[in-house]
Amino acid sequence: MAQRMVIALGGNALGKNLNEQFLAARATAEVIAELIAQGHEVVIVHGNGPQVGMIQKAMQELTRSNPEKYIPCPLSVCVAMSQGYIGYDLQNALREALLARNICKPVSTVLTQVAVDPCDPAFLHPTKPIGAFMTREEAVQMMESRDYVVQEDAGRGYRRVVASPKPKAIVELETIRAMMEAGGVVIACGGGGIPVFPTEENTLKGAAAVIDKDFAAALLADALDADQLLILTAVEKVAIHFRQENEQWLDTLTVSQAERYLKAGEFAAGSMQPKVEAATQFTRSRPGREALITLLEKASDGIAGKTGTRIVADAPSR
Amino acid sequence: MAQRMVIALGGNALGKNLNEQFLAARATAEVIAELIAQGHEVVIVHGNGPQVGMIQKAMQELTRSNPEKYIPCPLSVCVAMSQGYIGYDLQNALREALLARNICKPVSTVLTQVAVDPCDPAFLHPTKPIGAFMTREEAVQMMESRDYVVQEDAGRGYRRVVASPKPKAIVELETIRAMMEAGGVVIACGGGGIPVFPTEENTLKGAAAVIDKDFAAALLADALDADQLLILTAVEKVAIHFRQENEQWLDTLTVSQAERYLKAGEFAAGSMQPKVEAATQFTRSRPGREALITLLEKASDGIAGKTGTRIVADAPSR
Repeated sequence: MAQRMVIALGGNALGKNLNEQFLAARATAEVIAELIAQGHEVVIVHGNGPQVGMIQKAMQELTRSNPEKYIPCPLSVCVAMSQGYIGYDLQNALREALLARNICKPVSTVLTQVAVDPCDPAFLHPTKPIGAFMTREEAVQMMESRDYVVQEDAGRGYRRVVASPKPKAIVELETIRAMMEAGGVVIACGGGGIPVFPTEENTLKGAAAVIDKDFAAALLADALDADQLLILTAVEKVAIHFRQENEQWLDTLTVSQAERYLKAGEFAAGSMQPKVEAATQFTRSRPGREALITLLEKASDGIAGKTGTRIVADAPSR
Repeated sequence: MAQRMVIALGGNALGKNLNEQFLAARATAEVIAELIAQGHEVVIVHGNGPQVGMIQKAMQELTRSNPEKYIPCPLSVCVAMSQGYIGYDLQNALREALLARNICKPVSTVLTQVAVDPCDPAFLHPTKPIGAFMTREEAVQMMESRDYVVQEDAGRGYRRVVASPKPKAIVELETIRAMMEAGGVVIACGGGGIPVFPTEENTLKGAAAVIDKDFAAALLADALDADQLLILTAVEKVAIHFRQENEQWLDTLTVSQAERYLKAGEFAAGSMQPKVEAATQFTRSRPGREALITLLEKASDGIAGKTGTRIVADAPSR
């Protein structure tokens, strides 16, 4: 049955540099083109961890060698660049994979801003390391001159850490919807979206943050009234008691089970935890919605119910 | 009378660094919001000269300091990044300027690829300098290892030069049209578009080139069946005999006059010449079409017929 689905792709699945990304985008595109060939309506959200890291490093090097001319590049601007960088390869690979199947659909990338709340508790505890390593002197200077939060990183030097707040609203939602409804395949909310704070004067102010792409995808899936949220990652199924004697790979997880396991700390922070949380949030948001977490290469099998972990609504109580 | 117009904005009008761009985008947005408030349907194309230069330099510095990890970044990828970089500031400023006028329209940036012809004669004579200065050793290495064309630049070192081929087709045209027809304000073909070669296998291969944004805008205006091509630049009018005793500022230029002056070399290459050529090409393409070249700040006056140089069809012969 044809479904409307939002697909969340890991940034790591897209490679760590230019060459890797070019090849990874092609492999990813094959998987997604297959879903489109099956009749599904697809919107794609991707991560950008290694990519925005590369861009931040490059901009940092530029500032280092030309400090008078170039101020440090805000993280929001680096995310915007990464949407261009990744979207270009991904839309291209997808266009080609569709044409190879005689499917002629417009594929495009919408530069997307995502609003976050300046009062989000995540801003009190920035945890995501970003950009190049700095010397102690550079770190102190950045903390003083630019309000960076900097942490010592396992003896390797100092790195900036930023917050990962929850996405609250997708600024370009109307555009994404219009493109989808016109039959297009849309790439949006790249890297979780360019994080912005809305102000009372209608300004959107760039935030020094990175948004988790799984949460951005769940929010987008809800807003587009998707049937399915498909989180494609590096493992085939979700496990509880991971790497322990009683490790158990799950075919389904009800919302209540997932909430219980999340509370019990069953899933790794920054890894499986946000995926299960985003999936649960989406399934819970409206009857008839489901989420699936599986391996990129197994997406079609997962949709067909052959593998992966489905996050489903609780069985109705009697 | 409300018109459909494609606006071409100079990359220089958007500033040479982050701070300049932020302010310039706001000033530009005021001008464009005013045109939208007058009822015009607007699609925006912008240049990216200083911006793609900055990104290329940054990526070059990254490769210099981590040669094992990062290969030199292709120009097409840098253009993709620059579309994210500029689109983010511009769409934000425009959204804000529209909301300040109580106009609630989606504003968005479409990552745009533009096909060029590998047989374009421009590839035989690359002329556009791009990226950071190199030492002689670096230059030789780049020429040997990466097929760069490199030129000595007035004693300041060596720089890569690339071709500026004519745009042949806009890959994401359907998306741009759908967004415009849905009532959105679209930013597209940034930096003239990401230059790509279409291949027989449906691949779009990144081209080492920069496309003139005025020609990309003329092509887009034609494809969207716009009424007007508005080229906003740093001068109020086009002049013939520029900076000579008989200098003459023009209110109108017919297609025949423009063609004659172009042939006579009246307009500076890489500056006014491509603007007049693009404007002429658009006006000539269908009856009822007009182009206007004027100062960014005078756009509304220009549309009202008070200033600027209009490029109009020849008077019908009797």
